[in-house]
Amino acid sequence: MAGSAPDGLAARLSVNQATVDRWSLREVVDGCARHGIPFVGPWRHRVQEVGAPAAARLLADAGVAPSSLCRGGWFPAPTGAERRRRVEDNLRAVEEAAAIGTDVLVLVCGPAGGRDIDGARRMVAEGIAAVVPHAAAAGVRLAIEPLHPMFAGDRSVVVTLAEALDLAAGFPSETVGVVVDVYHVWWDPAVYAQIERAGREGRILAFHVSDWIVPPPDFVRGRGMMGDGLIELRRLRSAVDAAGYAGPIEVEIFNEALWERPGDQVLALTRERFLACV
Amino acid sequence: MAGSAPDGLAARLSVNQATVDRWSLREVVDGCARHGIPFVGPWRHRVQEVGAPAAARLLADAGVAPSSLCRGGWFPAPTGAERRRRVEDNLRAVEEAAAIGTDVLVLVCGPAGGRDIDGARRMVAEGIAAVVPHAAAAGVRLAIEPLHPMFAGDRSVVVTLAEALDLAAGFPSETVGVVVDVYHVWWDPAVYAQIERAGREGRILAFHVSDWIVPPPDFVRGRGMMGDGLIELRRLRSAVDAAGYAGPIEVEIFNEALWERPGDQVLALTRERFLACV
Repeated sequence: MAGSAPDGLAARLSVNQATVDRWSLREVVDGCARHGIPFVGPWRHRVQEVGAPAAARLLADAGVAPSSLCRGGWFPAPTGAERRRRVEDNLRAVEEAAAIGTDVLVLVCGPAGGRDIDGARRMVAEGIAAVVPHAAAAGVRLAIEPLHPMFAGDRSVVVTLAEALDLAAGFPSETVGVVVDVYHVWWDPAVYAQIERAGREGRILAFHVSDWIVPPPDFVRGRGMMGDGLIELRRLRSAVDAAGYAGPIEVEIFNEALWERPGDQVLALTRERFLACV
Repeated sequence: MAGSAPDGLAARLSVNQATVDRWSLREVVDGCARHGIPFVGPWRHRVQEVGAPAAARLLADAGVAPSSLCRGGWFPAPTGAERRRRVEDNLRAVEEAAAIGTDVLVLVCGPAGGRDIDGARRMVAEGIAAVVPHAAAAGVRLAIEPLHPMFAGDRSVVVTLAEALDLAAGFPSETVGVVVDVYHVWWDPAVYAQIERAGREGRILAFHVSDWIVPPPDFVRGRGMMGDGLIELRRLRSAVDAAGYAGPIEVEIFNEALWERPGDQVLALTRERFLACV
């Protein structure tokens, strides 16, 4: 596949680093280049292994563009001091996104520490408010990712597209938007209405794909390769396209069995299924 | 606890049979009587082991009232013939509910068999429509239970209280309503608004409690005992009370570790936590 000029859907393919979790940033970037995959979605811990300036050079040298940086967020915490540390970490994430050359920082907003989900939701809004000025100055957009409600207890109190859009509405659309990840939203009776709304409000900053396999093998590491599950991928992609999003589409698959396969096999399968199913 | 007169909250306690899954109907009914628990929520397979008439006698003799029967539903299927068989099974479930002396049949509506969640939702509506006349004639109410969205792929395409209420709205409130189960709805940003709506529309037929533990040990059998997790149980119970529901409150906990404990320990703990946390 190397050397083939991506066009149409293929020109939008991005592989999120979590899909080949065992690979370093250099390995995934070189892999994308070998497989004709134009974008990559790096994670911060992998960027930090080489440092943001080296990561930027490595991406530029390979001709693979970053579609986002994963991830900021995780705002709720029991004390004001800890919440300030979380905000400071988000300011660094904004810097890292700008340094590697992406203007999209994905936010996984964080869970409630105890029995107060509304309080945690207020802390998320306050945390984003505290990061917005820095993000605007750096030209980085904060992409709120609603997570599947099964993660409400340990990853994010933001669990629907409607909730993410309501939250984003408090901030300028130039700086704050949402991620539409099919794995997190496919079950929602309101998903198509909310995708249309997200487009109308100018808030779609990223689109992520994978699949929901039955029965799900694991809470966290049980996502499926596109085509192996129940999600109406093409219908959702068409809705996101119709809502005006024309950017990269990230394949993000947390799956233990996939991680045990050679990365080059995973990238080849990812590209094939992406073109066939998304 | 035997002999103590239940009053106030204690007078509303029901133990769903799934909480002591290894016990037969007789064992759970006798256990409830021993522990001063006035209601029980039987499952059909346990009723069928003795037959509905014997189950009714067994309940009456013990002075323990059935708060509901679990469960009907499971409507979507690929062929018309199979969907008719599912409806017929629901007609039998209605008969069984009436025969054991409860007017609440819980519906777990069923998953989509493939990549067409909206089609499955239509099959659910058609299935309920086909059961309503028989239920009305038998004086049994159909209680649509929205399940947590993590079960959209293998148990129910009805996943929010709003969706369940929209579905119920197509039928008379004398015959069709909803179950509010905290485990399935606690994460929903709209939950309090929808509980208020459910009360206003006269649709709350049952209220189930358990807890959401972190991290969740299992998709299906990982529910927590009240007080062990994150759910704001008293706040939700107060909302359901304020919405006008004054009926039994069923404790339904699918949990492998709990099932390995002696049933009498489980009932004692259930009653204690129910009074302390709900």
